[in-house]
Amino acid sequence: MKINMHFGSDNHLVVHPQILDAIVKANSGSTCAYGLDDYTKEAKILFNKTFGECETYFVGNGTAANVLALASIVRSYEAVICTKQAHINTDECGAFEKYIGGKLLTTSKDDYFLFPEEIEYWVNKYKNFCHAVQPKVVSITQTNESGRIYSIEQLKAIAQTAHKNYLYLHMDGARIANAAAYLGCSLKEITKDIGVDILSFGGTKNGLMFGDAIVFLNKNLAENFEYIQKQGMQLFSKMRFISAQFIALLQEDLWFKNAKNANEMAEYLVSQIKIINHVKLARELNGNEVFLELDLNFAKKLQEKYLFYIWETNFKDEKEKAICRFVTSFCTTKEDVDLLINEIKTLPFYAQFL
Amino acid sequence: MKINMHFGSDNHLVVHPQILDAIVKANSGSTCAYGLDDYTKEAKILFNKTFGECETYFVGNGTAANVLALASIVRSYEAVICTKQAHINTDECGAFEKYIGGKLLTTSKDDYFLFPEEIEYWVNKYKNFCHAVQPKVVSITQTNESGRIYSIEQLKAIAQTAHKNYLYLHMDGARIANAAAYLGCSLKEITKDIGVDILSFGGTKNGLMFGDAIVFLNKNLAENFEYIQKQGMQLFSKMRFISAQFIALLQEDLWFKNAKNANEMAEYLVSQIKIINHVKLARELNGNEVFLELDLNFAKKLQEKYLFYIWETNFKDEKEKAICRFVTSFCTTKEDVDLLINEIKTLPFYAQFL
Amino acid sequence: MKINMHFGSDNHLVVHPQILDAIVKANSGSTCAYGLDDYTKEAKILFNKTFGECETYFVGNGTAANVLALASIVRSYEAVICTKQAHINTDECGAFEKYIGGKLLTTSKDDYFLFPEEIEYWVNKYKNFCHAVQPKVVSITQTNESGRIYSIEQLKAIAQTAHKNYLYLHMDGARIANAAAYLGCSLKEITKDIGVDILSFGGTKNGLMFGDAIVFLNKNLAENFEYIQKQGMQLFSKMRFISAQFIALLQEDLWFKNAKNANEMAEYLVSQIKIINHVKLARELNGNEVFLELDLNFAKKLQEKYLFYIWETNFKDEKEKAICRFVTSFCTTKEDVDLLINEIKTLPFYAQFL
Amino acid sequence: MKINMHFGSDNHLVVHPQILDAIVKANSGSTCAYGLDDYTKEAKILFNKTFGECETYFVGNGTAANVLALASIVRSYEAVICTKQAHINTDECGAFEKYIGGKLLTTSKDDYFLFPEEIEYWVNKYKNFCHAVQPKVVSITQTNESGRIYSIEQLKAIAQTAHKNYLYLHMDGARIANAAAYLGCSLKEITKDIGVDILSFGGTKNGLMFGDAIVFLNKNLAENFEYIQKQGMQLFSKMRFISAQFIALLQEDLWFKNAKNANEMAEYLVSQIKIINHVKLARELNGNEVFLELDLNFAKKLQEKYLFYIWETNFKDEKEKAICRFVTSFCTTKEDVDLLINEIKTLPFYAQFL
Repeated sequence: MKINMHFGSDNHLVVHPQILDAIVKANSGSTCAYGLDDYTKEAKILFNKTFGECETYFVGNGTAANVLALASIVRSYEAVICTKQAHINTDECGAFEKYIGGKLLTTSKDDYFLFPEEIEYWVNKYKNFCHAVQPKVVSITQTNESGRIYSIEQLKAIAQTAHKNYLYLHMDGARIANAAAYLGCSLKEITKDIGVDILSFGGTKNGLMFGDAIVFLNKNLAENFEYIQKQGMQLFSKMRFISAQFIALLQEDLWFKNAKNANEMAEYLVSQIKIINHVKLARELNGNEVFLELDLNFAKKLQEKYLFYIWETNFKDEKEKAICRFVTSFCTTKEDVDLLINEIKTLPFYAQFL
Repeated sequence: MKINMHFGSDNHLVVHPQILDAIVKANSGSTCAYGLDDYTKEAKILFNKTFGECETYFVGNGTAANVLALASIVRSYEAVICTKQAHINTDECGAFEKYIGGKLLTTSKDDYFLFPEEIEYWVNKYKNFCHAVQPKVVSITQTNESGRIYSIEQLKAIAQTAHKNYLYLHMDGARIANAAAYLGCSLKEITKDIGVDILSFGGTKNGLMFGDAIVFLNKNLAENFEYIQKQGMQLFSKMRFISAQFIALLQEDLWFKNAKNANEMAEYLVSQIKIINHVKLARELNGNEVFLELDLNFAKKLQEKYLFYIWETNFKDEKEKAICRFVTSFCTTKEDVDLLINEIKTLPFYAQFL
Repeated sequence: MKINMHFGSDNHLVVHPQILDAIVKANSGSTCAYGLDDYTKEAKILFNKTFGECETYFVGNGTAANVLALASIVRSYEAVICTKQAHINTDECGAFEKYIGGKLLTTSKDDYFLFPEEIEYWVNKYKNFCHAVQPKVVSITQTNESGRIYSIEQLKAIAQTAHKNYLYLHMDGARIANAAAYLGCSLKEITKDIGVDILSFGGTKNGLMFGDAIVFLNKNLAENFEYIQKQGMQLFSKMRFISAQFIALLQEDLWFKNAKNANEMAEYLVSQIKIINHVKLARELNGNEVFLELDLNFAKKLQEKYLFYIWETNFKDEKEKAICRFVTSFCTTKEDVDLLINEIKTLPFYAQFL
Repeated sequence: MKINMHFGSDNHLVVHPQILDAIVKANSGSTCAYGLDDYTKEAKILFNKTFGECETYFVGNGTAANVLALASIVRSYEAVICTKQAHINTDECGAFEKYIGGKLLTTSKDDYFLFPEEIEYWVNKYKNFCHAVQPKVVSITQTNESGRIYSIEQLKAIAQTAHKNYLYLHMDGARIANAAAYLGCSLKEITKDIGVDILSFGGTKNGLMFGDAIVFLNKNLAENFEYIQKQGMQLFSKMRFISAQFIALLQEDLWFKNAKNANEMAEYLVSQIKIINHVKLARELNGNEVFLELDLNFAKKLQEKYLFYIWETNFKDEKEKAICRFVTSFCTTKEDVDLLINEIKTLPFYAQFL
């Protein structure tokens, strides 16, 4: 399928040319394995510059970044408070439970946003009650799983409530770049400055080939992590090829440019969609994920040409409707969006599709 | 350090140019994520051609390949029979025990080679005894951890004894290419044909950037593996970049050419070392790992210029001696070896080093 | 505290005299350890008579009975469907997640009763989706955690839906005796006959000292259980003292008499409470757990003399109200209930309590 | 089989009458469940009197006592140093690996006794090497698995070496009473005073019905143990029936009297055996386990009448010999031993047995 037909996910795409260049350039000379190379040293320094004092380790992917970050804090009789739709709860095949043995305590006010009062609910419910797991960490996803972004105020309130209750704050940052671009903040301002203790910093959705960073903003938590990383099957021998990518991503704010383009293309898509009668914006747009409400049959027809995911059906008792997700990326162009819009406009919309 | 100064390990080296080319070429167009792309499809077909009927999955590294391969067979009350120096026992930070919860039953006749009668020892010792773990798998490493290679006859005897006792045979093939090149066999002849059930097929030491293959030669064992892979934090989104590497490695026998060069350079190194008085070959050479017995102080002096590992000291009650490992690779040249030999010859050898 | 002041739980009470007698009588002569004794043999035969063809193993307590029963079926990438308030989800300190590594998928229609359509919801939601755990077992609690009892029809519907979807049915039977007594059924009729595959059969709440039985009604699932039991730290050396208790409990239907008395005393308590103005029955009574809605301050005052638990506060926006649980048992007498009722009647009820 | 025919193990026997009495007496009145009762309070105080300042928890059996004691200290990337024949390594079906995920590093100088220099071997071998598990605890068994007893000097040397290397010392005390009786020491003198940090204190082999104590002599290590206990499936509801047993065992030194009788009967057995020609003492006697070297066929013949275990065959290349274990107990009498001796003397000894 041609690249501009893919709105399925930002990890369906190519590696950003500058990232690939960095990989190619790193392919010269011998280095020590397992992270004892100069690329990794340089990358760690860059993380310090970007986030302030921190300890950084590189692992293979987002699931590993979430699970091993939490494994460094949580004992099996402890728990992580998160939303029902948190990636760790729904999309990692139980990796958290398998690896850590702990429990995820999910919140109920909203499927995607977590609220401070829900932290207190779980803390108080089980306090000193040995028949139940004890909350130890709050984990939030920024940008969250519905493409929405916590404001600085929301983040601060969550961090304060977590810390007041002696809980650590973990952030799943698979799309944190899009959040920073949206909020107009630096990466430090939406993590360390608001009180995040550990960050899973993802790059694959923003142009990397593979590799995620676990950033211990609270450096005490990094103690012994090298053993957790190795035992967790996430210590790569030719580490320099992960580190080189992160250097390219953080240097000269490539992460920001990539995220900015993705967000802008999503905004452009929404602006164009507004004039089409039978298509509705299903969720408020924050970052680079556009959720549209389409007629189910129409969506299926459109899928013959375009790749995107039907996210939800059978909502609001309307069986004929579908919420569909369209994701833009660092390499989406205005022309790509125009072509999609044109297809939506010209593809006949009538009930006899089935 | 210059590339030809590195005899530390074959994973200290660059990615083979043809592998890197394959990665660069794969960076075009969008594909589905998580292995549902055409590169992965093609790579799996190539594994079938290479190994005969099999199911193949790609994971991040060798530890993951070993642990998840075994996780597909072993329940926590079961055990894996292996040698004391098996990589899973000594070099994976307890990843097997952590992830599977089972036990490694180590053999004692030799630290590196496993013998059929030792399989029967463990099977009989615990048969139907509910107070002890039950053997389920035999795991051997080919090339083994001392650089030695099992003969076809040895492999067959192990496989037969394993199967006769209802055990599966797993092979840790981090350096299997060197073994095949040494034995003059195809990959199929030293795995499927002798009765290996699951193979961890490593490529990083033979020119890959990252990624290992778990090859289910006994296809029944692959059932449900996609869940094990995802839960095991080893399902990579941009999978095509692993698959493309394996295509390049298996196509036109690049794996063989790489291994052959590494083995030949090791042989050449040994041939040149024989004429130096104070250096002895410590272990019989099979593949690409040369173990030399050096004076400890001399070794330390040599390490100022060359990277290699001191493998063992304090053996045979000779405190002044060290067994040192020199690993050659696909990119080692005769000139590299000559320079090393020259250094060994010209570096003064006297007791006053300290 | 005197025995008749305890309405806290049916496991706060003494061991039934006949059970204790059985223990004392078993204390004669030597026997083999770890279940290879005649008492255990006899007890297993009695379970066959009681439940029809089955395999039975004895463990230490209810948490162990639930976790190891499920451990015999569930792999870590699989899941158990249960209600939000299932004991395994809320009262076992995450033992399921720790020991099995799998996930509990909770239902939302009711906190305590599970409905067939919710099984299908979870099955369909994740079918063949490797990013999520795969449902394997449905677990229900009979009598459930709110003291309510599934009807035979409800049980059959659940069993059918589970089996149709290739799921096993587990029953947490910590208070199953009360359910059988309430429904007027044999133990077999509410387990094997309706399609339960594995039963955790508890006795501590019905007069035992310690020990639970895992009853594999589907005998295939018992394969290898002796290893799971030992590894699960639940193989007791002097097993005869558990087995002897179960013999006494099943012989001459002691289990039924005990449960019947408990249920009848609960009914009597409810009948007497109805005439008191400021006390309301908070949940329909089925077995031996009476949930009363009391004024919170009144409840606290009553607790100075009686032991019972405040189950819930802050419901229906009435901060001054509390749902309190009073549990009757095999040894509760009419006089005990009358004394409690009298106390409730005579303890002044006014708002100035605080 | 009559009680005096059982020399199989000290857990084949009855519960000591005073222990049973204590259980019967505890069966009066209601108490809170899960250890919040007065018996448990009193038992804990008795442990303080017996061992000095400590925190004590009661679990179901010896496997649980070992695993949960170690679970309170060891993270999955850490390791326990123990002998090859340690109960945790050979007789608990991999419960340690399953529950903790860590690794047992076994010593090789002796199968049963651990030596200080072996602690240092493992510590130095892996120091700061992230590819291997990190030693955290030394675990020794007193009386050890061959019935031998560490001297106070040996214990002190082990404790010192452990602590010097920042390791904790755990003692598996399934037969610690026999060791104290043999050494003529108090329980405190062979545990807290020599530096044991955590003790698994077993009673089943010394007259208890069920239940082991985990004694945190280093009280800091007990933090959070209530959660480990519950999650570890070892929090019993009617806890008083374990606590009451321990009260009876520790009060008036019943533990000592029981152990003394067992030891003395073992000594008497050995004294009588010495005059029989074809029977040899296979291992030095310390406590209550007598290992005799018998002709294999003779042993099998004797087993038709007496229960004891053949411990080892095929040693010293003598296929016709067997090492057999005879265990005496608190209730073994001189007459029991005399009868056994008489049987050994009169049972014809000739090679044609087969």
